[in-house]
Amino acid sequence: MKAHHAAMKDTRPRVAMLLGDPNGIGPEVGLKVLANPDTARLAQVVLFTNDAILESGFAVTGLSRAVLAGVEIRALDLIDARAITPGQASAAGGRAALASLTAAARAAQQGAVEAIVFAPLNKHAMRLAGLEQEDELRLLQELFAIDGFVSEFNITQGLWTSRVTSHVPLRDVASHITRARVVDAIRIVHRYLAASGKAAPRIAVAGLNPHAGDGGSIGREEIDVIAPAVADAQREGIAAAGPLSPDTMFLMAQRGDYDAVVSMYHDQGQIAMKLMGFEQGVTLHGGLPVPVATCASGTAFDIVGRNIANAKGLQQALEIAAAIATSDSRRLRDAAIPA
Amino acid sequence: MKAHHAAMKDTRPRVAMLLGDPNGIGPEVGLKVLANPDTARLAQVVLFTNDAILESGFAVTGLSRAVLAGVEIRALDLIDARAITPGQASAAGGRAALASLTAAARAAQQGAVEAIVFAPLNKHAMRLAGLEQEDELRLLQELFAIDGFVSEFNITQGLWTSRVTSHVPLRDVASHITRARVVDAIRIVHRYLAASGKAAPRIAVAGLNPHAGDGGSIGREEIDVIAPAVADAQREGIAAAGPLSPDTMFLMAQRGDYDAVVSMYHDQGQIAMKLMGFEQGVTLHGGLPVPVATCASGTAFDIVGRNIANAKGLQQALEIAAAIATSDSRRLRDAAIPA
Repeated sequence: MKAHHAAMKDTRPRVAMLLGDPNGIGPEVGLKVLANPDTARLAQVVLFTNDAILESGFAVTGLSRAVLAGVEIRALDLIDARAITPGQASAAGGRAALASLTAAARAAQQGAVEAIVFAPLNKHAMRLAGLEQEDELRLLQELFAIDGFVSEFNITQGLWTSRVTSHVPLRDVASHITRARVVDAIRIVHRYLAASGKAAPRIAVAGLNPHAGDGGSIGREEIDVIAPAVADAQREGIAAAGPLSPDTMFLMAQRGDYDAVVSMYHDQGQIAMKLMGFEQGVTLHGGLPVPVATCASGTAFDIVGRNIANAKGLQQALEIAAAIATSDSRRLRDAAIPA
Repeated sequence: MKAHHAAMKDTRPRVAMLLGDPNGIGPEVGLKVLANPDTARLAQVVLFTNDAILESGFAVTGLSRAVLAGVEIRALDLIDARAITPGQASAAGGRAALASLTAAARAAQQGAVEAIVFAPLNKHAMRLAGLEQEDELRLLQELFAIDGFVSEFNITQGLWTSRVTSHVPLRDVASHITRARVVDAIRIVHRYLAASGKAAPRIAVAGLNPHAGDGGSIGREEIDVIAPAVADAQREGIAAAGPLSPDTMFLMAQRGDYDAVVSMYHDQGQIAMKLMGFEQGVTLHGGLPVPVATCASGTAFDIVGRNIANAKGLQQALEIAAAIATSDSRRLRDAAIPA
């Protein structure tokens, strides 16, 4: 009965798809994702783009307008065909990327899309185009007028990581590690992992110091701050473990002991993730009104136009964002219609 | 002519071999190294042990006294057969490990051996036996009465790492990073790599902060401390590069751009090395009168006696220590006999 009902109503989430910087690999990999049959199965795609960018992508990939069947196009005034300079950062490219991001955020606020997936951006190009925020996460935060806790997740080979501090000098990291921040970081990765479809996710929480402080002899943050935060999360029913020794926890996660690692600072997580193949992975922004996901790889200016860019990361970004949007919509629906 | 001369004189360095904690995998892997034909080709082995430990190793490995052909035995009063408790840390085991380490250090001081290679030790057992120093490196430092700069190198898959700070709380790391310490760390890894046979080693020097400070916007240690230290090393003719972004330098090293990475703190190096298979690697202590090397793996109490312990790490430890000892002896000989 349920299946019959579902077949009558389109339950796929509406996902905004953005082709990123038109001078990077975005148009190529974006069209490859549209050509993947999984995409239409999982999402109603709303494509924020213009003709010049589409034509440029068709020329490289050999794909045709057939991939747009079933896709809703939001045609924007992004960039002229003549202004596209493949493989080169430009203000025009940065402007196109920023304009599509802004339009998608507005659509999300109006309820027209339930997730945003974007192809690689180029920070230098966006700066040339006037980006004043530190990065796209801060921009999105402002566009959505979000003051609360936002978090970036990096996902590779099924392993999620997040971090309590990010672009902070190492000298200042320890003073930013508070019990409340650690609990927030555990909660948010738990919430998004669960929304993405992982039941009862197992979350490893890193120590801060070598050997996780070795019983207090190499620093006390594990005892004074991190262990109490892990206990707080456990009391909320979250399967959190730690604080774990930073140099062995990724081996444990890699062999499947954990679904996520909450790291304390940027390189604690990034050194491991990059070695574990994160270039093919996904970055997900949590804490915004809708899930926002992208591939970990950049605009890859050196290989633009050769049709060799790997679309796997962007495909995964779409799948994760669609799963979370579906779960969120269901949650909202469940909340709206009492049983 | 040279070859003829060399054939007449034994130019192999004398290498002290220690079987480590008798309750761990040391006796097994040590005998396997003796059974490897490369060992006798590269080194005159001086084995610090006793009969009870040897018999225990023979029983597990199925090897016989034939592996001792050409090996000089230093029979010590280490442990009774009845006191050997495979797979269990004990004061008796720790005492045996410490006694053989002490005897080997004395032999090195007397010029009887030119390198020391030891099988896994167990810190808990050594503490039960009265070890007061932080670890075996500090013990060796005291035995050799060395006040100067000593350094631990970790080596896996041909990549060496060392670190400027080690068991220091993360909160204090930045204040320990000085120009003099960074230069010392670069120099010592360069010296040992060159002695091990690597001509003109290429040394990557890590930044301290995320993205190596990103031009000073996420910390200034790269600009104020590390870059000047790298320049100092370059002026001495060392092929040092950096400061590099901590989260990408290991990918570059892994693809072969560098022979060594000098990291700024414990987990910056250890997170990467453990993911790169360091359990099969080598730890080398530099700055002592003779090279001292061991395998990275521990006593592995859970697999003792099953003859499945991998001897690869200890074999590599012997090969690296023998190469450095050979080079050091040659250097001393060259210094003594003017051309």
